[in-house]
Amino acid sequence: MDWSRVQGPVRRELAQVDRQLAMLFRSDIGIINQVAGHFLATRGKKFRPTLLLLVARLGGKADRDVVAAACVVEIIHAAALIHDDSVDKSLLRRGLPTVNHLWNDEVAIIIGDFLYSKAFTKMVDEDLHPAMEILARVSHQMTIGEALEFEFEDDVAVTEEQYFDVIRAKTASLIAGACQIGASVNGKAKDKARVRRFRDFGDHVGMAFQITDDLFDYVGDPLSTGKGVGGDLESGKITLPLIHALTQNGKDGKRVAALIEKKRLTPEEWRELVAVLERNGSIEYATKRARDYAKKARRALAPEPTSAIKDALDASVDYAISRLS
Amino acid sequence: MDWSRVQGPVRRELAQVDRQLAMLFRSDIGIINQVAGHFLATRGKKFRPTLLLLVARLGGKADRDVVAAACVVEIIHAAALIHDDSVDKSLLRRGLPTVNHLWNDEVAIIIGDFLYSKAFTKMVDEDLHPAMEILARVSHQMTIGEALEFEFEDDVAVTEEQYFDVIRAKTASLIAGACQIGASVNGKAKDKARVRRFRDFGDHVGMAFQITDDLFDYVGDPLSTGKGVGGDLESGKITLPLIHALTQNGKDGKRVAALIEKKRLTPEEWRELVAVLERNGSIEYATKRARDYAKKARRALAPEPTSAIKDALDASVDYAISRLS
Repeated sequence: MDWSRVQGPVRRELAQVDRQLAMLFRSDIGIINQVAGHFLATRGKKFRPTLLLLVARLGGKADRDVVAAACVVEIIHAAALIHDDSVDKSLLRRGLPTVNHLWNDEVAIIIGDFLYSKAFTKMVDEDLHPAMEILARVSHQMTIGEALEFEFEDDVAVTEEQYFDVIRAKTASLIAGACQIGASVNGKAKDKARVRRFRDFGDHVGMAFQITDDLFDYVGDPLSTGKGVGGDLESGKITLPLIHALTQNGKDGKRVAALIEKKRLTPEEWRELVAVLERNGSIEYATKRARDYAKKARRALAPEPTSAIKDALDASVDYAISRLS
Repeated sequence: MDWSRVQGPVRRELAQVDRQLAMLFRSDIGIINQVAGHFLATRGKKFRPTLLLLVARLGGKADRDVVAAACVVEIIHAAALIHDDSVDKSLLRRGLPTVNHLWNDEVAIIIGDFLYSKAFTKMVDEDLHPAMEILARVSHQMTIGEALEFEFEDDVAVTEEQYFDVIRAKTASLIAGACQIGASVNGKAKDKARVRRFRDFGDHVGMAFQITDDLFDYVGDPLSTGKGVGGDLESGKITLPLIHALTQNGKDGKRVAALIEKKRLTPEEWRELVAVLERNGSIEYATKRARDYAKKARRALAPEPTSAIKDALDASVDYAISRLS
């Protein structure tokens, strides 16, 4: 899937976001500069700012405030990743060492807090409404997602509904918030039903995105996903393919529970687990649920008139479920 | 020093703060309820909400928004303590185990983030201006204080000025913010010079408070301060008495540097360090600096007409430097 199809219409604004981010991270404090340099070097596709900018551009042009809001969304995302990696004891992120791994958990706490509060300071400094309201609530949702994930750790009785609650709060809320901000900052902002429709669009894209991301632990090529294989299992995250397999009658369900309990699998056990997931249609089931959300996202987008930007948003849905061939 | 002299005039409002805090921490999520219960059980004197309420009451009565802002200040304080204890690997807080000790650093990260974002959500939900602006900036200052403290860890070349930068950002900023909010939410809010004067009052109280708190590591009775003795030294914090002693010529300055480098002292070495600090007037020097800030705080308060609430604020200055006999 060609990511440039998504970013094409907002390339200029994304370059402004990059420049603002680089400026925001300049600091007299050595440790902040070092971690910021690492952070800027490992930046990914800027999925959330891209969606915010595209949705904003659908309703007019993206002014200075829109670019600032896009920066803030990316900073909040970065803060959450840094704290999450520390909570999960993750060692890799996009194929590079995490902050907690390269430095330690103490630095991860400090830098995450620095970024969160930087985001809120920027919003009050630049008087960014409605980003402030939306992102205060979204940040809280994200921490609730983290708490729920912690709560359900190692719990083989976790339900599909509980899993959806976790990923909606942890991941989809910020993507939904980015799209909601995008729809709230231009000439069409007064159309409340449209704003809600774009929040829903973001929610569905976010759900599809996270289900797909969780699938990569079992089907992905670690070189292309940048995640260490088996990381979710080791940190006790029971994701959708496992939840599906656990509910299978007979010995497969029990075997999956035993492997989950073991956590650190030998290469042989890992192949066995993936084989069980495939045999029981668990990979296929999770893939289908991601595609269902992608369909819902496209339905939320459908009422918009045809345009190059609408095409880019449509391509972002493909991106969310890409590499699911 | 009699703390009831400080809280007396705002006892009713503080009871409302307590009720609101208990409500805010009710959650469906087990781990949040457990940690919240521990947090509510170990609550201290609510120094920051008390100052906010007193300053607000000096200008009129404290309405619903003032009580809400006082809650928010206490929640931000709690979030910062939980993250700081985790960064510092502290085991005790007010004589009870810290969150990172009783649970672990992962829980401390999650709960701290939960509390920060709860505070900001409450401010947007209740449309709390100017608390939102002030506390976004203060939260950022606090993280800068943490980063600076990390930067200067184990650095025997740290200057008095750098130490003051750290404690101003880490501690005084929130106390200054609480007083600034108190002065900004009533009939006298339009008097900008008065608002600044109360921000300065809070800054000076905060500086006196933290210098005193840091002194307790060397002069305090652990039973009354609730801190483990030697904790600052072990975590590499070079505070004012040490900075003073390090600049002494001759063998005392060098001996202090050697003991700082060793970090974990035997009881004998500990007695030696305290003796060196006393012999060189380092305890006395830090005590005097705390008292200087207390004097500056009283000068900032002086223009206010005599009242029971002014007396209570005056008593809060005594509290900040109390136990320095």
